Amino acid sequence: MIDRILEEVQNGMLTAAEAKEKLSTYENLGFVKIDHHRKNRQGFPEIVYGEGKSAEQILTIVQSLRARNDSVLVTRISLEKAVIVQKNCPEFEYNEIARTLAWTEEKPKTNGYIAIVCAGTSDLSVAEEAAVTAETLGVNVRRIYDVGVAGLHRLLDNIEEIQNADVSVCVAGMEGALPSVLGGLITNPIIAVPTSVGYGANFNGLSALLSMLNSCASGVSVVNIDNGFGAAYNAVLIHRLAHKGEK
Amino acid sequence: MIDRILEEVQNGMLTAAEAKEKLSTYENLGFVKIDHHRKNRQGFPEIVYGEGKSAEQILTIVQSLRARNDSVLVTRISLEKAVIVQKNCPEFEYNEIARTLAWTEEKPKTNGYIAIVCAGTSDLSVAEEAAVTAETLGVNVRRIYDVGVAGLHRLLDNIEEIQNADVSVCVAGMEGALPSVLGGLITNPIIAVPTSVGYGANFNGLSALLSMLNSCASGVSVVNIDNGFGAAYNAVLIHRLAHKGEK
Amino acid sequence: MIDRILEEVQNGMLTAAEAKEKLSTYENLGFVKIDHHRKNRQGFPEIVYGEGKSAEQILTIVQSLRARNDSVLVTRISLEKAVIVQKNCPEFEYNEIARTLAWTEEKPKTNGYIAIVCAGTSDLSVAEEAAVTAETLGVNVRRIYDVGVAGLHRLLDNIEEIQNADVSVCVAGMEGALPSVLGGLITNPIIAVPTSVGYGANFNGLSALLSMLNSCASGVSVVNIDNGFGAAYNAVLIHRLAHKGEK
Amino acid sequence: MIDRILEEVQNGMLTAAEAKEKLSTYENLGFVKIDHHRKNRQGFPEIVYGEGKSAEQILTIVQSLRARNDSVLVTRISLEKAVIVQKNCPEFEYNEIARTLAWTEEKPKTNGYIAIVCAGTSDLSVAEEAAVTAETLGVNVRRIYDVGVAGLHRLLDNIEEIQNADVSVCVAGMEGALPSVLGGLITNPIIAVPTSVGYGANFNGLSALLSMLNSCASGVSVVNIDNGFGAAYNAVLIHRLAHKGEK
Amino acid sequence: MIDRILEEVQNGMLTAAEAKEKLSTYENLGFVKIDHHRKNRQGFPEIVYGEGKSAEQILTIVQSLRARNDSVLVTRISLEKAVIVQKNCPEFEYNEIARTLAWTEEKPKTNGYIAIVCAGTSDLSVAEEAAVTAETLGVNVRRIYDVGVAGLHRLLDNIEEIQNADVSVCVAGMEGALPSVLGGLITNPIIAVPTSVGYGANFNGLSALLSMLNSCASGVSVVNIDNGFGAAYNAVLIHRLAHKGEK
Amino acid sequence: MIDRILEEVQNGMLTAAEAKEKLSTYENLGFVKIDHHRKNRQGFPEIVYGEGKSAEQILTIVQSLRARNDSVLVTRISLEKAVIVQKNCPEFEYNEIARTLAWTEEKPKTNGYIAIVCAGTSDLSVAEEAAVTAETLGVNVRRIYDVGVAGLHRLLDNIEEIQNADVSVCVAGMEGALPSVLGGLITNPIIAVPTSVGYGANFNGLSALLSMLNSCASGVSVVNIDNGFGAAYNAVLIHRLAHKGEK
Amino acid sequence: MIDRILEEVQNGMLTAAEAKEKLSTYENLGFVKIDHHRKNRQGFPEIVYGEGKSAEQILTIVQSLRARNDSVLVTRISLEKAVIVQKNCPEFEYNEIARTLAWTEEKPKTNGYIAIVCAGTSDLSVAEEAAVTAETLGVNVRRIYDVGVAGLHRLLDNIEEIQNADVSVCVAGMEGALPSVLGGLITNPIIAVPTSVGYGANFNGLSALLSMLNSCASGVSVVNIDNGFGAAYNAVLIHRLAHKGEK
Amino acid sequence: MIDRILEEVQNGMLTAAEAKEKLSTYENLGFVKIDHHRKNRQGFPEIVYGEGKSAEQILTIVQSLRARNDSVLVTRISLEKAVIVQKNCPEFEYNEIARTLAWTEEKPKTNGYIAIVCAGTSDLSVAEEAAVTAETLGVNVRRIYDVGVAGLHRLLDNIEEIQNADVSVCVAGMEGALPSVLGGLITNPIIAVPTSVGYGANFNGLSALLSMLNSCASGVSVVNIDNGFGAAYNAVLIHRLAHKGEK
Repeated sequence: MIDRILEEVQNGMLTAAEAKEKLSTYENLGFVKIDHHRKNRQGFPEIVYGEGKSAEQILTIVQSLRARNDSVLVTRISLEKAVIVQKNCPEFEYNEIARTLAWTEEKPKTNGYIAIVCAGTSDLSVAEEAAVTAETLGVNVRRIYDVGVAGLHRLLDNIEEIQNADVSVCVAGMEGALPSVLGGLITNPIIAVPTSVGYGANFNGLSALLSMLNSCASGVSVVNIDNGFGAAYNAVLIHRLAHKGEK
Repeated sequence: MIDRILEEVQNGMLTAAEAKEKLSTYENLGFVKIDHHRKNRQGFPEIVYGEGKSAEQILTIVQSLRARNDSVLVTRISLEKAVIVQKNCPEFEYNEIARTLAWTEEKPKTNGYIAIVCAGTSDLSVAEEAAVTAETLGVNVRRIYDVGVAGLHRLLDNIEEIQNADVSVCVAGMEGALPSVLGGLITNPIIAVPTSVGYGANFNGLSALLSMLNSCASGVSVVNIDNGFGAAYNAVLIHRLAHKGEK
Repeated sequence: MIDRILEEVQNGMLTAAEAKEKLSTYENLGFVKIDHHRKNRQGFPEIVYGEGKSAEQILTIVQSLRARNDSVLVTRISLEKAVIVQKNCPEFEYNEIARTLAWTEEKPKTNGYIAIVCAGTSDLSVAEEAAVTAETLGVNVRRIYDVGVAGLHRLLDNIEEIQNADVSVCVAGMEGALPSVLGGLITNPIIAVPTSVGYGANFNGLSALLSMLNSCASGVSVVNIDNGFGAAYNAVLIHRLAHKGEK
Repeated sequence: MIDRILEEVQNGMLTAAEAKEKLSTYENLGFVKIDHHRKNRQGFPEIVYGEGKSAEQILTIVQSLRARNDSVLVTRISLEKAVIVQKNCPEFEYNEIARTLAWTEEKPKTNGYIAIVCAGTSDLSVAEEAAVTAETLGVNVRRIYDVGVAGLHRLLDNIEEIQNADVSVCVAGMEGALPSVLGGLITNPIIAVPTSVGYGANFNGLSALLSMLNSCASGVSVVNIDNGFGAAYNAVLIHRLAHKGEK
Repeated sequence: MIDRILEEVQNGMLTAAEAKEKLSTYENLGFVKIDHHRKNRQGFPEIVYGEGKSAEQILTIVQSLRARNDSVLVTRISLEKAVIVQKNCPEFEYNEIARTLAWTEEKPKTNGYIAIVCAGTSDLSVAEEAAVTAETLGVNVRRIYDVGVAGLHRLLDNIEEIQNADVSVCVAGMEGALPSVLGGLITNPIIAVPTSVGYGANFNGLSALLSMLNSCASGVSVVNIDNGFGAAYNAVLIHRLAHKGEK
Repeated sequence: MIDRILEEVQNGMLTAAEAKEKLSTYENLGFVKIDHHRKNRQGFPEIVYGEGKSAEQILTIVQSLRARNDSVLVTRISLEKAVIVQKNCPEFEYNEIARTLAWTEEKPKTNGYIAIVCAGTSDLSVAEEAAVTAETLGVNVRRIYDVGVAGLHRLLDNIEEIQNADVSVCVAGMEGALPSVLGGLITNPIIAVPTSVGYGANFNGLSALLSMLNSCASGVSVVNIDNGFGAAYNAVLIHRLAHKGEK
Repeated sequence: MIDRILEEVQNGMLTAAEAKEKLSTYENLGFVKIDHHRKNRQGFPEIVYGEGKSAEQILTIVQSLRARNDSVLVTRISLEKAVIVQKNCPEFEYNEIARTLAWTEEKPKTNGYIAIVCAGTSDLSVAEEAAVTAETLGVNVRRIYDVGVAGLHRLLDNIEEIQNADVSVCVAGMEGALPSVLGGLITNPIIAVPTSVGYGANFNGLSALLSMLNSCASGVSVVNIDNGFGAAYNAVLIHRLAHKGEK
Repeated sequence: MIDRILEEVQNGMLTAAEAKEKLSTYENLGFVKIDHHRKNRQGFPEIVYGEGKSAEQILTIVQSLRARNDSVLVTRISLEKAVIVQKNCPEFEYNEIARTLAWTEEKPKTNGYIAIVCAGTSDLSVAEEAAVTAETLGVNVRRIYDVGVAGLHRLLDNIEEIQNADVSVCVAGMEGALPSVLGGLITNPIIAVPTSVGYGANFNGLSALLSMLNSCASGVSVVNIDNGFGAAYNAVLIHRLAHKGEK
């Protein structure tokens, strides 16, 4: 990219000022620099991490993004803050389990889908964050919940639906064994998300995290504890690759 | 026990000296106090932990135990030391994988058995330590090896044999998911043994240990990393309970 | 099991649909899949983990289980939620120390019992969770509380009652030394439960957990920190084995 | 899959024995069960983890796999063992930096490639393990080495070649910052591999591992410390998805 | 210093009492010993750490320092306590983001400045603590905020301003990669401050702390997690050295 | 002791019942077994740990101890609970900083004293717990507070008073360097108490704990984080030894 | 001390040079500054830590100390180095288990003794380091070895001898439960030494260390893992206090 | 920098090719990209980290750097490798304690110096690495060794020499208390280096690292465990600032 810009400058196609703008085009709202070129560079608009931001800050950012994109996603936002934002942006939907606030005009462009697989009912919050993320970014999702390894038949019943997904997001807390078992049964990539669900020697998700990193099954990669958003974002990138030739 | 001894002393059935001996009857070899009453109290003779003891020390202890018991077991003993002991005690058998030196005249008194289930080929050493321990203490063993969760069909093929055991010892390294899966499939107790097999975020068995402690399956209890002996000892105690009425 | 079902299908004794149902028979309540065949497979109905579930969700699950089983147990449930459930299910009893909600029509079928041994008064909550679990699953319990190793005579006074149990659950916080001492005095299996009681270098139960895993006494296996339920469940499985021949 | 097999059994298309074989078809070599159906199920033959296996064991497994597949890969194998295997299998190539032994008749079927990006010269061993893995599984690789963040211009010079890959494997030790920086510059998925390179507060790769899990850039997922093989395997799965429509 | 005092005592220039006072001159307020000679010894007055002190205690200390110095700084003080202190000391300014209460009559004596560089909006609180500390101690500050490595162009746009500072304070949470990248781009010293911003495998700042300690860039030293004050204090010491010849 | 009791039983000086009582004489209050022979065995009455006990439970225990001893000490008790106890036991004094409730009729029997040395004002709570403990057990105390190593002259000014103590309790948080410095300056034993005071990489007292355990000065031993009581108890035992010949 | 020296300087009793020498009187051997006034200040000569020093360096230091003291102790010295030192200092004795090299002309001045209590045979090395340290510093020692808590009767048999010591050093590895049990049985101070003996979840002595720090018994303080020397040094200080009035 | 280059391109002062070269001018030796512009950008040539590189690789790099700079430094290089390099580069000096290989034609340009302060004789290796680094980069050094806090008078004797340095590097293992004590005595910045010297609860330098990060003294910043080079590099940067006006 630098090469190309330098060439264009030399060819007189770009002034130095224009070249500089190309490299750094974000809106400076004072407390935050919003990256509006992200959609160009990354293919998706900037996602807003709600924790630690006030409702007013979120509203400002959301309105700025809303004006320039087809979808906007806020993660880790409380009901209280969401209500304040919704007063000005009533088209945004709040998902209480996922703690997300989202608006999208993206329509899924492919029939492919991401499987969101989840071990227990306590992991729902993380699984839903993943599901909403993928949907907001314009990808179909199938939810396969409560299929932990202690009741193997529940998982085996749903294995074909998972196998037919382009990629799976696999959410599990406690001992985090589900991705290992799943990895032995299917052939597509798995993004594993450890959750902080558990107690005692779980150490806030450390147990599940280590399990997943040490998985004896191939095809499993891992994101941070409780990071449903990150897993879905990865899955969406892979999904896009899997359908890049389609129209 | 204290009550009974006190009574016997008062009744003149025991002198104070005899009473005292009842409470503390071990042979003092200088560097170690061998507990010869252990077989009475615990039902099994003292097991010798070979690590950190010289071949000569082990030989002295082994000969002392050999004279008073039906079986003798040394764990964590190197081939070099074992050879030295075997010169004097040729009836002892060395198991190179388990690193055990054992002699037994115990014959299994029941048809029941303990299942030793093991995830991968790298966990063999710990699994064999468990197997030899149980056999030396007079209990039948069935070895079900290399049935890790990444190839679930291998485990399912053997599930009936595991279910029919009184109790299972389940050995796994890396992410240690096997006990959780097994716990959902069978109904008898499982003693889980994490192994230090793995690398990186395995942290010398910590990953498998935490997995097993956090197992979402009921009926699973855990012993120390690589402690095949301890798991088998527990299993033998449970096996004895399961057959206590038999003759 | 798979073998047998396959055979029955081939013999025309089962249709494929029936075969499939045999492998996966749970009730899908939307947010959770209740496993009603668990009692058949495992011998005990599914236990409900109350933490993170709403009173309404617990009520729905409890009513579903109540209709098909002889006993129902909810663990880690707050008084507030319990009161709501009890309005519809007044036959359920709430134990404030154990934080359990239970109903059972099971009567102990044997004279055998499980000893629940507890080091200090602060460990009572975990010990009671274990006691209620065993009682709800139809097994007699003897409570031997406040017998920590710093006052050894308290433990020695009760040693015969503990020895006569089929199996002991041994609950201790702080340095968690009780199972090691007990393991040297009795000959039946001990399920050790570390508790998070303590402060400073206790690190929320890590100290007691490591102590128990490293116990120099044989016959001790360990469950997760504060997992009174899991320990009792293990003990009940062992108790069942010890009395399987009885009627 | 279970469904389909059950149906075929009922339709008389399969006998129970055939059905069972379908579910569990591996070769039992005694010390290990080789999974010959893996290529069917997973699309790639089983990879052999050399650590802890003797040269003889590796040779036996390699010959068994060689007879049935188009490529065979052994990872973490020392030069000494490799030489022994090569005597019988001279067509196998040993890579000393990667410590891999490989043979392949697979030809890359697409023009797409995986970028193997590596921070420092000390991470070469892990990067090469990744590169050899991908090449053995029939995928083109581009090596972009020694482009750590402390000399940012080295990375920027190569950014277009990385961006044009379907997927990148990003290897870094010490503080592991490279995936975060790369994630902000490209739009395809990144599989991050922390290495154990470093000293002191590196804690054998923990520092890089935590960095990568906490990456502020989206599109990054992580595998175990030093797991070059696992990262490449993931990348190959993604590459296959990206080219599934091609012929 | 001891040498000199001893000499002066011998020369009769000091009595023993005077000598002793020279070595230990602090005001004993009962609950705390305020060190009024600190300004002489260290060049700066004692800074008050507000956490764990009552508003009344802080007021007493602040008034005592106010009477003898040109600037007073209280860190980690809540709004509630600050309001109470301000009633008596209205000239003190409270900074809500930094949670500092400060008063200064110091005027910057040089044109040099410290750059406070900050990765994300969530790290603002720590960055502001650093900025207020430097300003209160009489040094100019330039704030360069929200320039995390995932949007590299934001950092590159500001690199010249950072390079021209005598020394930089570099604040980052999550993976803490910013100091490594910055260290490769500029030539003056960097004081890195990890923050506890993040979740999951961040472990309250451990991830960023380890990253910074393992930085592959030279010229980076590290202070405690969230210790904006300590970083700025170090930077002020370095700034003073850089301008010691000026008047 | 066992020997002597056994002899007395044989000599008819004791019945078995009396012998048994000698070994186990505690009052069973239901929820707790109070050890009234502790004063005989240990020289001091049982101390009550208030955390996790209700005001009512504490009152019951306190009244039982009050009736049989010259001093009673409750540690870690909140003001609310203390007020309730004081209604019935108005002679008890509550120390808000130490969070202790104490009553004593013990008068110091020696002129010797214990020095309670404390690094910073934030460590006062732990230091006071130590001071109250020693005083309640009848030993004089000298408080030397706020003498942390960053202002060395404060410590040096008080060094003679510390040296003249029989034994010192040395309380420090943050980096916990005080015992090492003190250990090089005095010749009597030091009981070091790490406190949880600090933030970030302090990890709740871990930093100070490790410092003290690794102290390069001899004569330092360590108790648990924040365990002012335990340190003082140790110091009182040593003080008693130092004055055992006195009357 | 500073006060007194300052006074003497003012009184003309000391010159400044003499005063300075009083504060810093050590021999500068180049690679190390030997502290010959330590015996005056601390009552015992400097002890030499052998690890990391060459035989030649040790010899130089030992000869310097030998000339000015009644006893010299080198800890953590290998047999090879000891042999070299002994060639020049044949009066020094090497203890292979303790890995100490010692010479003493000190005769025990009291009948009192220190009890060295040790849990298992594998802890002997640390226990012997403690024993040799105390003996070299002129204090009687009683060794009570192999009395771990798993065979409680061994400990009870020796309890009177331990109780009669002024102070005990209590050495234990694995779960480190011995000090807690001992602390409940005796009334004098206990210095607990965790050892690194164990495996798996022992984590090189962490398990025993945490146990001892969390001991529910009062009167226990702790030194570093494997620090037999430090424990004995503490015990010698306490012993000296206990006999300070004697002649 | 980017701005300026872009401008020059537009002005025709640079071609695109020249511009690109300006941004990335390193020599590609195949296995490593040597950064020859580093001296321009950073003021010092690239330093070679010897660990993990072969003697031949080091030789190649060294010769390339030797040709273009006034000084070359290799750290963490064994004697064996150094001897091989020295055969071709006899002007290089090997320091066995520091494990450095260095050559310099730089002469110190100022009278200022860096104080290298070191707690114990075992920390010498790290201290010497720091000293050689500073000297090779052309800065005077004063070595103040063996002044640990347990013998405070040794430190006080040298305090004036340390105070007069522009900046101090303070090296300490075990409890790492020296920087805290030093920080209270002097007024210039301190770069603290924890070392891995110690055993047991030292955890390979973790104890000293945490101590230094939690230092209660201001003016202390920290580098990685054993990173003598990094500390000296920081000190050299600060020294340069302190003398930037001088000629």
